[in-house]
Amino acid sequence: MNREDLLFSIRTLSRSLDAASFASFVRHTHPSDLAEALDVLPPEQALALLLTLAAPTRAELFVHLPEQRQDSMLRAMSREAVVQLFEHMPSDDRADLYNRLGEQDKHKLLPALAKVERDDILRLAAYAEGTVGSVTTSDYVHVSPQMTVAEALAHVRATAPDKETIYSLYVLDQEHRLSGTVSLRDLVLADAQASIGTIMRRDPVFARAHWTREQAAELIRHYDLLALPVTNGGERMIGIVTVDDAMDIEKEQDATQLARFGGTASLGAQDLDVLASPLRQMFKVRVFWLVILTFFGVVTSTFVAAQEELLTQVIVLAAFIAPIVDMGGNTGSQSATLVIRAMALGDLRLQWRDVGLIIKHELPVAAALGVAIAALEVVLAYFAKGVGFDVLMVVGLSMLVCTVLGGVIGALLPFLARRIGTDPATLSSPLITSVMDLLGVFIYFAFAYALLGDLLTQAAG
Amino acid sequence: MNREDLLFSIRTLSRSLDAASFASFVRHTHPSDLAEALDVLPPEQALALLLTLAAPTRAELFVHLPEQRQDSMLRAMSREAVVQLFEHMPSDDRADLYNRLGEQDKHKLLPALAKVERDDILRLAAYAEGTVGSVTTSDYVHVSPQMTVAEALAHVRATAPDKETIYSLYVLDQEHRLSGTVSLRDLVLADAQASIGTIMRRDPVFARAHWTREQAAELIRHYDLLALPVTNGGERMIGIVTVDDAMDIEKEQDATQLARFGGTASLGAQDLDVLASPLRQMFKVRVFWLVILTFFGVVTSTFVAAQEELLTQVIVLAAFIAPIVDMGGNTGSQSATLVIRAMALGDLRLQWRDVGLIIKHELPVAAALGVAIAALEVVLAYFAKGVGFDVLMVVGLSMLVCTVLGGVIGALLPFLARRIGTDPATLSSPLITSVMDLLGVFIYFAFAYALLGDLLTQAAG
Repeated sequence: MNREDLLFSIRTLSRSLDAASFASFVRHTHPSDLAEALDVLPPEQALALLLTLAAPTRAELFVHLPEQRQDSMLRAMSREAVVQLFEHMPSDDRADLYNRLGEQDKHKLLPALAKVERDDILRLAAYAEGTVGSVTTSDYVHVSPQMTVAEALAHVRATAPDKETIYSLYVLDQEHRLSGTVSLRDLVLADAQASIGTIMRRDPVFARAHWTREQAAELIRHYDLLALPVTNGGERMIGIVTVDDAMDIEKEQDATQLARFGGTASLGAQDLDVLASPLRQMFKVRVFWLVILTFFGVVTSTFVAAQEELLTQVIVLAAFIAPIVDMGGNTGSQSATLVIRAMALGDLRLQWRDVGLIIKHELPVAAALGVAIAALEVVLAYFAKGVGFDVLMVVGLSMLVCTVLGGVIGALLPFLARRIGTDPATLSSPLITSVMDLLGVFIYFAFAYALLGDLLTQAAG
Repeated sequence: MNREDLLFSIRTLSRSLDAASFASFVRHTHPSDLAEALDVLPPEQALALLLTLAAPTRAELFVHLPEQRQDSMLRAMSREAVVQLFEHMPSDDRADLYNRLGEQDKHKLLPALAKVERDDILRLAAYAEGTVGSVTTSDYVHVSPQMTVAEALAHVRATAPDKETIYSLYVLDQEHRLSGTVSLRDLVLADAQASIGTIMRRDPVFARAHWTREQAAELIRHYDLLALPVTNGGERMIGIVTVDDAMDIEKEQDATQLARFGGTASLGAQDLDVLASPLRQMFKVRVFWLVILTFFGVVTSTFVAAQEELLTQVIVLAAFIAPIVDMGGNTGSQSATLVIRAMALGDLRLQWRDVGLIIKHELPVAAALGVAIAALEVVLAYFAKGVGFDVLMVVGLSMLVCTVLGGVIGALLPFLARRIGTDPATLSSPLITSVMDLLGVFIYFAFAYALLGDLLTQAAG
């Protein structure tokens, strides 16, 4: 069903509130699509439709709604409906929703839940946002090494409806520590009487609950896992992170990295979201960087203004400041992002060997670019402004040096950022440009004084 | 086993070439880690180790090696070893490897393979790089609607060793067209005598082989799939794309998008890779953008130079050009990346409603930023250079307008890019900055003439 049909159906259903039709519609439509369709309805109508569903189906659909919508619907639901929701939601989404409640609502909710659910929520909700624990679900299948394959399969059949995934099973010892893993594929292919302990894979890849969720996603991607077991400080297994969550985590991380590289890195606090971040936070973070860039600009412009004498003599020098110093930032922006890309794909690590490798690759390219662009600028300067040979030399040489220096410095900055423990994208394109602007004016006027300095003495004398 | 132990073991094994020890080592280590470890050995040693393995294990490890290493090893292998490799490799990696062979090698290889493999390779290798077909594997499980659950499970057990995944099964009709899907979970939980036709899910999500591979990855992420079925033009199913490949595709796409935003977008050709791209291509693509930026710079500087009269009168105006026009690009870079991020996360679509939503969010922020930064620049200009009130007004007003305009234009550019069918990141940060530089000098001198123009008439008169 395409998008228009979906939206049309949803609007019709929201007017008729026909429970049977909606339930059938839900059965035949993917939750992601349903959630998008519900988004176009006013909140009360969407909620009314949702309440016609049986509690388990309702919970499954609910977790696909955007967080803001979940929160507003929750406030409009009866206490009984809220409790039902918490009973049927997957454990990781449930813990997230719990953490978004106000303190009073939390205290009102907990006593109404069964102990098993209450303990589960409190355990998972204890992990800070951004950690592996915060994206962990406790709905996993665990078996003991002594079980036979047949017993394990029977256990899977019995518990499957409540489990996030049954394709990875986790073998735990009596202290609930992770001994190994076994896949459903292994079970299906193994001899029914073999013991789990003999067919399981030992030394499984795992993550600790306090690690970052991005680390969990990277492990899942690197090892092609469907799910990653999570242990707490005491080596006990507390849950798993599934591959679908890993894909979402990486998508958000990479999209946010791009925004950071545009100059919006949030230091410590939550990353900016153009639609969701309150105006105050959006202003605070962005003005912080713009102020830093302003100060760079002030230093640069103060320096330029101080060259008033030379500029008065050779006024046309002023016209070339921007194009030349900009080229350093442009080239640096190119090389920095190419290096960050290679780091993200695992081709570069934080080691001197890779630094040398990068310089080896970037230096010739930057040199070639520098020669080409310098030549172009000189030609254009001659034909467009008819400037003298001395000025052409200043323009050409400083353009060359700015370009080469920009390329090499840009390529090294990501290593510097990783060395001090920050995301390379925090050294944003505007920042790289501003730094190269400052270096650029030094280089430009250095050449200007070297080649045109006699004009000053002439003027003085 | 940590990285140092891994490397130590590999080096020891490469000296002893003990087949049994290496085979045992391979059994206990994940292929991704093994491939990284082999990477530190010289190619001949790595190949020698590889050749001690049985053909199936060797092929499984081979596909985890970087492509360049695969190609160099292939050239050093005997024809018999190459044929064995092609017999045991997963079908998607095999087709990729085939496509990297030279024409002569392709013609020599094909006759040596069994017909089934030959046909499979030719079918998959026919898809251009970057398409869904190029990342499709034909190693999937298919069943017919008439089968019972018990028969399907028996079929899975019989064919599983050769299949990429047995967790998603595809129900095909007699024309090999996709009727529905059934998961291994569904099979395990269903009644053994039920027919596949009754328990299968209809209208499955699928991709066509000629779509882009990024579209396939997005479908997998959006619908939380473990595998996505792929059909050809005639609706026949040709294979699947698995979730682990989808994660890799998205990682590469996002990392490359960042590099494009740094100013290295490749128009039509392959994207740049800082280590792998030949110097000629690296130069070509990067110089293309730097030349475009140079021309923007030329137009901007020509315009500035033409204001020679005013600049001679109020020389200090020259010092503020860069900081003020840069702020437009800085603010635009921020807003553009925030919008691109929201688009990547699915929060914004290409519709007027979302354009309006963004302007509604960005305008107040850009205005607040403009006022703050303009005030700061005016204060700094006063204390640092002691300029007169008129110049302060020019500085303050143009800074305000540049910032607001930069923010709004930056926020709209991604929509424009999507409208003309290109990745928003192609409008790179350097490009945004250069465009805002040009607009900025117009704005700056407009205010300058408006507020200081009388100085010119005074000078003339």
